[in-house]
Amino acid sequence: MALRLAAIVAALGGELHGDPALLVEGLAPLEQAGPGQLSFLSNPRYQPQLAASRAGCVIVAPSMLAAAQARGACIVAPDPYLYFARLTQLWKKQSAPPAGPAIHPSAVIDAAAVIDPAASIGALCVIERGARIGAGTRLAPRVTVGENCVVGERCVLHPGVVIGADGFGFAPNAGAWEKIEQLGAVRIGNDVEIGANTCIDRGALADTVIEDGVKLDNLIQIGHNVRIGRHTAIAGCVGVAGSATIGAHCTIGGGAGILGHLTIADNVHISALSNVTRSISRPGHYTGFFPIDDNAAWEKNAATLKQLHGLRERLKALEKK
Amino acid sequence: MALRLAAIVAALGGELHGDPALLVEGLAPLEQAGPGQLSFLSNPRYQPQLAASRAGCVIVAPSMLAAAQARGACIVAPDPYLYFARLTQLWKKQSAPPAGPAIHPSAVIDAAAVIDPAASIGALCVIERGARIGAGTRLAPRVTVGENCVVGERCVLHPGVVIGADGFGFAPNAGAWEKIEQLGAVRIGNDVEIGANTCIDRGALADTVIEDGVKLDNLIQIGHNVRIGRHTAIAGCVGVAGSATIGAHCTIGGGAGILGHLTIADNVHISALSNVTRSISRPGHYTGFFPIDDNAAWEKNAATLKQLHGLRERLKALEKK
Amino acid sequence: MALRLAAIVAALGGELHGDPALLVEGLAPLEQAGPGQLSFLSNPRYQPQLAASRAGCVIVAPSMLAAAQARGACIVAPDPYLYFARLTQLWKKQSAPPAGPAIHPSAVIDAAAVIDPAASIGALCVIERGARIGAGTRLAPRVTVGENCVVGERCVLHPGVVIGADGFGFAPNAGAWEKIEQLGAVRIGNDVEIGANTCIDRGALADTVIEDGVKLDNLIQIGHNVRIGRHTAIAGCVGVAGSATIGAHCTIGGGAGILGHLTIADNVHISALSNVTRSISRPGHYTGFFPIDDNAAWEKNAATLKQLHGLRERLKALEKK
Repeated sequence: MALRLAAIVAALGGELHGDPALLVEGLAPLEQAGPGQLSFLSNPRYQPQLAASRAGCVIVAPSMLAAAQARGACIVAPDPYLYFARLTQLWKKQSAPPAGPAIHPSAVIDAAAVIDPAASIGALCVIERGARIGAGTRLAPRVTVGENCVVGERCVLHPGVVIGADGFGFAPNAGAWEKIEQLGAVRIGNDVEIGANTCIDRGALADTVIEDGVKLDNLIQIGHNVRIGRHTAIAGCVGVAGSATIGAHCTIGGGAGILGHLTIADNVHISALSNVTRSISRPGHYTGFFPIDDNAAWEKNAATLKQLHGLRERLKALEKK
Repeated sequence: MALRLAAIVAALGGELHGDPALLVEGLAPLEQAGPGQLSFLSNPRYQPQLAASRAGCVIVAPSMLAAAQARGACIVAPDPYLYFARLTQLWKKQSAPPAGPAIHPSAVIDAAAVIDPAASIGALCVIERGARIGAGTRLAPRVTVGENCVVGERCVLHPGVVIGADGFGFAPNAGAWEKIEQLGAVRIGNDVEIGANTCIDRGALADTVIEDGVKLDNLIQIGHNVRIGRHTAIAGCVGVAGSATIGAHCTIGGGAGILGHLTIADNVHISALSNVTRSISRPGHYTGFFPIDDNAAWEKNAATLKQLHGLRERLKALEKK
Repeated sequence: MALRLAAIVAALGGELHGDPALLVEGLAPLEQAGPGQLSFLSNPRYQPQLAASRAGCVIVAPSMLAAAQARGACIVAPDPYLYFARLTQLWKKQSAPPAGPAIHPSAVIDAAAVIDPAASIGALCVIERGARIGAGTRLAPRVTVGENCVVGERCVLHPGVVIGADGFGFAPNAGAWEKIEQLGAVRIGNDVEIGANTCIDRGALADTVIEDGVKLDNLIQIGHNVRIGRHTAIAGCVGVAGSATIGAHCTIGGGAGILGHLTIADNVHISALSNVTRSISRPGHYTGFFPIDDNAAWEKNAATLKQLHGLRERLKALEKK
């Protein structure tokens, strides 16, 4: 698999400075790329790596043109990272042309499910009655879409995804738990991607809702009646408890935990590993986790932490003197 | 799907104040319910929402009768939330009568597994030799029950559950790891529910045990030789390390982590996201996680945290003066 | 299933002090073992349990010979825990002789995948084109190995494992996300074990790499372009973000989180539940999590924590006086 620079700019645009006949055999990061490879510089911070790179060609922003030309071939694009993303798409399409839409014969699909003819259903998927899968959506192998759940268009669901298991609802009854049947479903918009083994539970009464353009990584748990706003991206191992509402254009770092029944505004960014235990009403960057240290130092500080409130009181007393 | 109030009280009891012929077309929370919908008030705190609700009928406690009647139809029941739970069960049974017990033809079941004729096995399940599945238990699609593992009666296992993978046991051997074969199994009691993609490992020598009535949410990891006591409920994304013993009637919030080889008493309640790193011998409510803050404030506090023990020493020195 | 002590030492070595004809019917921990069971003492700390044990025979280190003989039969071995590990292997082989290598007929294997004839593929696995599975490797049921991913020799992959789902890569584009196709694969060495429902993502450009002898527990997320060094062991529910490099011979405790683009040296040990948010260049033991407390105490301390930096400033001011 190889593409000439001419073919790349013909497909994706950009301003080529260099030999259009140069054959690109692969994509690679700046510091690893060789003469047969194409790379990109998206962050001006890495400019020093540009001069040292052996890449056959580099995608750069207009402001980097001089520096890039001093080095060799380049493609100038307003947003090199976006250009790179589209280049990966072009590359994938050329090297492994996707099979047409198809339903793998091993998939188990209820007669009362509705699969768009332009959807693709992988091996050993299970699609239950009343579920609907939109055009251009691709289910990898071993995905479950439960009763009455709806997946929009151009979505990608990775292996092991479970859409529409029961939400976790029980009423206490004399020391035991009485099941609250989960009567809602899951509604997933268009252009949503869902990572491997991620689970999205059906709602208790109303539906759990994932809006257009949301991207979920692997091993994420989305509780019942959660709503996630448009184009929010959530990294791996995040848990979102029931009835939480997350705004649009948020990013949630990996391993974060989000309690139930709270609301996060649009454009909120949560650091990885943070615990969101209250609503957040203003856009911004929020963090909360215990910093790592060598174990001996941590032990001393963690022990003192249990006296922290007392320390404050003692400090106050001293200040009064 | 619709039910008259008369049919509901005939099935579930309760004292109806209102027109028995009123047709209920759905269940909904107080603030969203319309005239064709039935709602409930379980927490007196939400009484203000009662007056404003447009619900066709509301389930209330005896103490709320006057307030509810001022508004319209109501059903009085001693525990409205429990009544609501049973109503969801009635609703589900009416709207989607469960198919009889059956083994889906795509399931892969070893000849030496024992499936009760009143159990139901979903599509693409795998049940290995010596495993046993009790009466009334329902396995959703894509569940694995490993060799010699036992699942009791009336259990529900959601998609992707793995019962009886090997526990994580290795002995160090000259810088590498020697596998400790896991010779135990998993024993699950009656009325246990297990969420999507949750894993319960088999024991090393003895069995891992989940007692009657335990409820586990999605994406939970239960290590080898763990024992979880009756009617304990564990929310999503919790990890329980090997040989931990958790008492009966506990609740463990989502995202909590529980170390191995410790013991938690009955009636212990762990807040979501907390790290349980020592045994807990007394009933109560326990918590431990770093609170979230805006990132700039967190950075300052987290940096100071690493000097906390030193701060205490300095405070002591000042106090001595 | 039972073995005489003579057969055990014939297979595994060690110095038997006791009746070679004694029939062992099972393995059990010291405090639970009965006369028909074999146990072991690996930690001298547990010596008091040795005297009290009813085990038919105990595996001990040479230094424990006198104490063990005072009690009854024993096998002396330089590393009793390692001896025990091998004994579990012997036991398993005797009690449930593994079927020969085989591909379960329900597995879905692409014609362009390469399965070594000495590999074993469980029910309902999916192996995509270009994937390769080495000799002696065993895939449990319901495992996915994606396109072009390579699994070495003598590996064990437990149910629900997903190798080679797309890494989580998107470029921002006018408020939405543009997919970065993941063009790399996953390369897994020899003697690697991977727990149930664990996910290892394919690389963006280069491959994600798991070196020889790595042991991964259940429900672990390994992001794209991660590299994990030889014989490192990672417990359940750990998340490793993209492009992290973890050294050889490390141990990572359960529930820990490891940020992306950082480097952890060889022989680093991370406590369970810790947040690794920076590179670690020196071997050692590192920890970082908020200690648990009763909820009331935690609330007071957590609230004060938000003023910690201010407290330091006030302490400084007092010291200046």
